[in-house]
Amino acid sequence: MDKKIKAGIIGATGYAGQEVARLLYTHPSAEVIWYGSRSYVDQSYGKVYGNMASFADEPCRDDDIAALAGEADVIFTATPQGYLAGVLNEEILSKCKVIDLSADYRLKDVSVYEKWYKIEHKSPELIKEAVYGLCEINREDVKKARLVANPGCFTTCSIMSLYPLVKDHLIDPDTIIIDAKSGTSGAGRGAKVDNLYCEVNESIKAYGVATHRHTPEIEEQLGYAFHAGDEAVMAIPGGQPICINFTPHLVPMNRGILATCYAKLNEGVTSGQITAAYEKYYGNEPFVRFLGEGACPQTRWVEGSNLLDIGFVVDPRTGRIIVMGALDNMVKGAAGQAVQNMNLMFGLPETEGLLFPPVFP
Amino acid sequence: MDKKIKAGIIGATGYAGQEVARLLYTHPSAEVIWYGSRSYVDQSYGKVYGNMASFADEPCRDDDIAALAGEADVIFTATPQGYLAGVLNEEILSKCKVIDLSADYRLKDVSVYEKWYKIEHKSPELIKEAVYGLCEINREDVKKARLVANPGCFTTCSIMSLYPLVKDHLIDPDTIIIDAKSGTSGAGRGAKVDNLYCEVNESIKAYGVATHRHTPEIEEQLGYAFHAGDEAVMAIPGGQPICINFTPHLVPMNRGILATCYAKLNEGVTSGQITAAYEKYYGNEPFVRFLGEGACPQTRWVEGSNLLDIGFVVDPRTGRIIVMGALDNMVKGAAGQAVQNMNLMFGLPETEGLLFPPVFP
Amino acid sequence: MDKKIKAGIIGATGYAGQEVARLLYTHPSAEVIWYGSRSYVDQSYGKVYGNMASFADEPCRDDDIAALAGEADVIFTATPQGYLAGVLNEEILSKCKVIDLSADYRLKDVSVYEKWYKIEHKSPELIKEAVYGLCEINREDVKKARLVANPGCFTTCSIMSLYPLVKDHLIDPDTIIIDAKSGTSGAGRGAKVDNLYCEVNESIKAYGVATHRHTPEIEEQLGYAFHAGDEAVMAIPGGQPICINFTPHLVPMNRGILATCYAKLNEGVTSGQITAAYEKYYGNEPFVRFLGEGACPQTRWVEGSNLLDIGFVVDPRTGRIIVMGALDNMVKGAAGQAVQNMNLMFGLPETEGLLFPPVFP
Amino acid sequence: MDKKIKAGIIGATGYAGQEVARLLYTHPSAEVIWYGSRSYVDQSYGKVYGNMASFADEPCRDDDIAALAGEADVIFTATPQGYLAGVLNEEILSKCKVIDLSADYRLKDVSVYEKWYKIEHKSPELIKEAVYGLCEINREDVKKARLVANPGCFTTCSIMSLYPLVKDHLIDPDTIIIDAKSGTSGAGRGAKVDNLYCEVNESIKAYGVATHRHTPEIEEQLGYAFHAGDEAVMAIPGGQPICINFTPHLVPMNRGILATCYAKLNEGVTSGQITAAYEKYYGNEPFVRFLGEGACPQTRWVEGSNLLDIGFVVDPRTGRIIVMGALDNMVKGAAGQAVQNMNLMFGLPETEGLLFPPVFP
Repeated sequence: MDKKIKAGIIGATGYAGQEVARLLYTHPSAEVIWYGSRSYVDQSYGKVYGNMASFADEPCRDDDIAALAGEADVIFTATPQGYLAGVLNEEILSKCKVIDLSADYRLKDVSVYEKWYKIEHKSPELIKEAVYGLCEINREDVKKARLVANPGCFTTCSIMSLYPLVKDHLIDPDTIIIDAKSGTSGAGRGAKVDNLYCEVNESIKAYGVATHRHTPEIEEQLGYAFHAGDEAVMAIPGGQPICINFTPHLVPMNRGILATCYAKLNEGVTSGQITAAYEKYYGNEPFVRFLGEGACPQTRWVEGSNLLDIGFVVDPRTGRIIVMGALDNMVKGAAGQAVQNMNLMFGLPETEGLLFPPVFP
Repeated sequence: MDKKIKAGIIGATGYAGQEVARLLYTHPSAEVIWYGSRSYVDQSYGKVYGNMASFADEPCRDDDIAALAGEADVIFTATPQGYLAGVLNEEILSKCKVIDLSADYRLKDVSVYEKWYKIEHKSPELIKEAVYGLCEINREDVKKARLVANPGCFTTCSIMSLYPLVKDHLIDPDTIIIDAKSGTSGAGRGAKVDNLYCEVNESIKAYGVATHRHTPEIEEQLGYAFHAGDEAVMAIPGGQPICINFTPHLVPMNRGILATCYAKLNEGVTSGQITAAYEKYYGNEPFVRFLGEGACPQTRWVEGSNLLDIGFVVDPRTGRIIVMGALDNMVKGAAGQAVQNMNLMFGLPETEGLLFPPVFP
Repeated sequence: MDKKIKAGIIGATGYAGQEVARLLYTHPSAEVIWYGSRSYVDQSYGKVYGNMASFADEPCRDDDIAALAGEADVIFTATPQGYLAGVLNEEILSKCKVIDLSADYRLKDVSVYEKWYKIEHKSPELIKEAVYGLCEINREDVKKARLVANPGCFTTCSIMSLYPLVKDHLIDPDTIIIDAKSGTSGAGRGAKVDNLYCEVNESIKAYGVATHRHTPEIEEQLGYAFHAGDEAVMAIPGGQPICINFTPHLVPMNRGILATCYAKLNEGVTSGQITAAYEKYYGNEPFVRFLGEGACPQTRWVEGSNLLDIGFVVDPRTGRIIVMGALDNMVKGAAGQAVQNMNLMFGLPETEGLLFPPVFP
Repeated sequence: MDKKIKAGIIGATGYAGQEVARLLYTHPSAEVIWYGSRSYVDQSYGKVYGNMASFADEPCRDDDIAALAGEADVIFTATPQGYLAGVLNEEILSKCKVIDLSADYRLKDVSVYEKWYKIEHKSPELIKEAVYGLCEINREDVKKARLVANPGCFTTCSIMSLYPLVKDHLIDPDTIIIDAKSGTSGAGRGAKVDNLYCEVNESIKAYGVATHRHTPEIEEQLGYAFHAGDEAVMAIPGGQPICINFTPHLVPMNRGILATCYAKLNEGVTSGQITAAYEKYYGNEPFVRFLGEGACPQTRWVEGSNLLDIGFVVDPRTGRIIVMGALDNMVKGAAGQAVQNMNLMFGLPETEGLLFPPVFP
């Protein structure tokens, strides 16, 4: 590649935006030309995030996506829900590619979006075009996309952990329960009492029980996997989703998501079949490490990386499978996956700038 | 009470034993006369646990339970699995009461014990006499007991969170899944690489999936609740247990257990009925705070106390209830409950020495 | 005591105010009758601090100290700097005792206060009357006080660690350097980005270097110790303080202060003399544990308690002594000491409600 | 470079050894050919360190440095004190370069080594040849070295923070006090009760007060800086060191060192002179970020990187300067600096494989 991809970040001063900036700094084929912010305009980016000092000392710019579209090859948006839907339009998309880390274009059925997010969607006409950027599953579509809806952190972990089982009909999807645990960076950098050190440290809690917004996203995508091939079902916007329980928990750590997933195995399904299914779908995936039966993934082993670790246990007493997936919510759960999508969209090697070992301890 | 209850602790230099010592220090009617240890004999207890310096500077003694039985009114044993079963006998029990924090006498069916713990039980003849010391449920039996099997930490949290639902047949017990999260003190003070600071910090993992030893204990006790009144079933040793999934996780914090419990509600069960059931069983319990529908208990709000906080959410989409219980594994999950049992066994007010607010932050 | 002391707390919804409430709950001779707040008026105190649920469910009241003075025997103020100085007056003090956890009456020289705190002092006429509530040193004055200036957390730890050395002229006070480390609860419950979990966790930093407001407080009090007996010097408001370096650091933990203090030993001073000095001043103090030469106090051994642990090392190579003091900033560094002062002011046993072992782990 | 540098690691299963392996994985010009271990021979390296799974799944080999010397271009030794001194010899050095992360060749005066480390040095004849691998200061010597003594973590942080001040005689070296704080990874992966999660978490303590082994290393190197040009002094083995106080503290975090350094400024020295000195020595250094007067470095801003951040404050009241330095003990304090040394020794760009932003949060 002769010259670097010019990337702009809207929402660069949030945790996820910063992670995009950090990953792009060491990316051989891309460079950040615009650190967009609402609160820190004209302040040095390296002052807002001291880790970036000497790497990115230029001032933050505003969040004028229309102006940015004239300068950039790709725009990453790490913005509050509803923001991008309110400003995105055909003109921007005709000028540059957009990778959205918010949820604005993840759900195909706009009524589902509006019900779970409780906001009106301002550009529903763009939803259809958006490609759901779960690279391992939608790779070919991502390559051709102008607009990618980058999946959520819990979602990536949950869907990918369960995908082979659902896709190959090894479990009963109606029995799926996902008990997920997240580090605190997922809560963002907003100044809220609930996220203060002393409030989070030495505690664990569930939140958004039965109402968390990642639920319909998981259901829709697993629904596609389950009903694939059923033309009638797939023609429905959002397909015919399955219905699950999803419960997120806040854990006193900076990064990491662990999804512990429960489901009833279908009659006669063996461990061998399960292992074979994971090998089939993930055996050649550079960012998925299938650890095998009996393995319990730990978030520390994926921290700082774009990896997803998966393991499972079958409980013959109850007939259930327990699948566990672990990833770093800031990387594979957000910025790393966004860069992986960028690689696909620009014809680069999918792993470029992303293939490094996790940091431990 | 004219003179104080003389208490001995076998295993006083483990975390749970230390917590018994700490709680008894401020107990108005009891005093510790024997800090038993295997590794620290003759060393000052206040050197082994610096918090106890100036409160308990006497030297640790050995773990000679027979000698201790001649001096003490009550013995707390916080010993490795199988230890107490190997040394306890009628003579000791004829001299003093025993409260066992290990699992040796928790399971009525010795074959279940031997299967899950993979050790031979050396005194099965004493199992029948032992009372399972879940005070809120077995209060009257505890009062008359010579030998109390103090429940496990995960177990206390899980059973009590689900008890009203199972007892009143509001849920289908076959659908129970308990996803539990524990602070690291539950792993004890043994020097193991897995429990080093850098290995636990900034990580979460599941362990003992489908094989954790607290599983049969939960199943047996919930089985009693479910089958109560069915004479035939209850005559079987261990009753006719129900069959659940239980998955513990290790969380980077010192103390606390959160049990997130899932189950299918029986047809037509309403939130009102659920609330009423919790009020019925726990409305007058000094150590249970039922926080109501929609509440998500957090371990920080019970830390350092003998409290159990419970909340629940009904998911009308899936027909499941999610019940969450939070306690401090060292107190209500171990030493506090042991003291509560002591209070009952000696005719003291049940809350004596235990009714103080949790410590925050 | 026939009836309980009625205590009101202004600023009860801050961390320090909450700790006063928690400690008074188990105090045999006092009770809280007023949970004063600015932000949470009419909300249940047990909702604002979930640990206090079931212990204190009454609604928060406002911060009307004049009204409170008519109902209370003692008022604890845990309010922002300058607040109490703006509302306190003779009428209030004629009705009830006041224990101020802010810094408003700690410094005798009002110009020093205004210089370091950068606010005008609104009631300088009350400064003279206020007793600096370091119980171990000013016990007799506290007993007679109407207004106690409860010492700061860093201050308590620093002054008490160095007091015997300064008082007995064993070190050169001009060489004192105090490098202090604090848990995050010292930063309060305000919603600030700097205090978010992800910003504090996995990091350490110094702050307020050479400008921290606790500096003049330490200097003034150590000056009194050094110049005691020198009538001319002591007649100066604030005495003739000594001049030190004090550097606080923020540590990723909830509670605890460690002060590492350096000073040049005077010619010929021996370890024996040093030990003797600590024994002389603290040998009979219930809340000070002098651990001796070579001991390195750890904050975990005092957590949750009103204790101060002290140890020291002499470095013969450099002729310096390194004294280390550890306490819990919320207890001995704030609320516990306030209750200790209350005990003294009301003629109660000084240790009442405060003599319990630290919580570990 | 046509082919990659073949690197072997003796002690690859310790934390520092693992960090070398991790950094070399992404290094463009080097590859690891030997994961040496004592405890894990024949086990997959990616099983011992789960983060390295799929990156380094080959089995661990033993610690046969003589055999390794025949295969490798460079050997990194991350071994217990005294180990390398017992096995290193001219034959090994004639075959390949050695970078030692232990302290065996850091001190020029063997008697000082034996006094502080309390072990006999088995190959004192090699000490003279060894180059102290503080790249920013000894760059030219490192380039020509066969044997590099890679500096300690506390040492790197302390020396580099103070170097410009000592070198340019801006402070009185006899007044230097270094109060240092370290994350727990510095304690290694050995299974010790003191390093268990529950023992380290929520606590801070000093250790090795006045006796820590990094003290003479700091003194020797600062002595060289101070006495440079004084031929007579420099001819003495170890030069004529200065004498300081150094106090390390253990902080509940995985990585990071903060050194808070105190010293008396020489008469008339201004802030401008100090800033100029830091700019002179570090203005062009790629791995040093001089943050300027008033800045307080934080370990979170350097985590995972090879950077050292430095800031300072002058206290006009006491005439002291407080210099603060922050680095990641695993990277600039160990493995990163080792790789930087390798780059210099093999004629590669000094920053190769090391110039990436810190990870936050």
